[in-house]
Amino acid sequence: MSEYGPGGLFLADCPARMVVDLIADKWTVVVLAGLSEGPVRHGALIEMIGGGISRKVLTQTLRRLEAHGLVRRNAYAEAPPRVEYELTPLGATLIDPIHTLTEWARTHGEEVLDALDSAS
Amino acid sequence: MSEYGPGGLFLADCPARMVVDLIADKWTVVVLAGLSEGPVRHGALIEMIGGGISRKVLTQTLRRLEAHGLVRRNAYAEAPPRVEYELTPLGATLIDPIHTLTEWARTHGEEVLDALDSAS
Repeated sequence: MSEYGPGGLFLADCPARMVVDLIADKWTVVVLAGLSEGPVRHGALIEMIGGGISRKVLTQTLRRLEAHGLVRRNAYAEAPPRVEYELTPLGATLIDPIHTLTEWARTHGEEVLDALDSAS
Repeated sequence: MSEYGPGGLFLADCPARMVVDLIADKWTVVVLAGLSEGPVRHGALIEMIGGGISRKVLTQTLRRLEAHGLVRRNAYAEAPPRVEYELTPLGATLIDPIHTLTEWARTHGEEVLDALDSAS
């Protein structure tokens, strides 16, 4: 338990909170996963996510991830201009932890839903 | 990418969202970590978390985790009555994925904070 800080446990203001807050955003995990296989254009990301996200919200999410150093925006001076988004090396390191979590959900999601059903 | 569902990517309503919503609660991760080494009483959990959480909010968090099948409440008919909380086997399976995430934060948290500084 000592590794979790002087309180004997990790406290609410530790770095772990920052990453939980970060991935707690409704779209962070989905967008990072969408970029996990290489650079993607804005419109292609919309298609990959498959509805539910507006252009505006995707733009906001990408800017937030850019500000956190996880995503890079590349603008190419072509005609018409091309803009692609890609994971930074730092952003790429977050793919595995997220994958561990989504694998948990895939394996145990039904059990949680069953528990919620019998609790209500 | 095909593993993420018919949309080519996992959608916003997939099980992964449920677990992200679950751990997105401010106290879920902290409380699960507090229970990771064995049964703990309510008052001892408050001390472990080290301030910032009220008795009422801890009770609400424990009830929520109970409803999700992750925590069990054990009441012992002693004098005075003793109540302890512990992870269920299902709850215990979530410790490793959470640990992966907190390890990421420990390793890369500074880089994210640096990026936020230079973005602002």
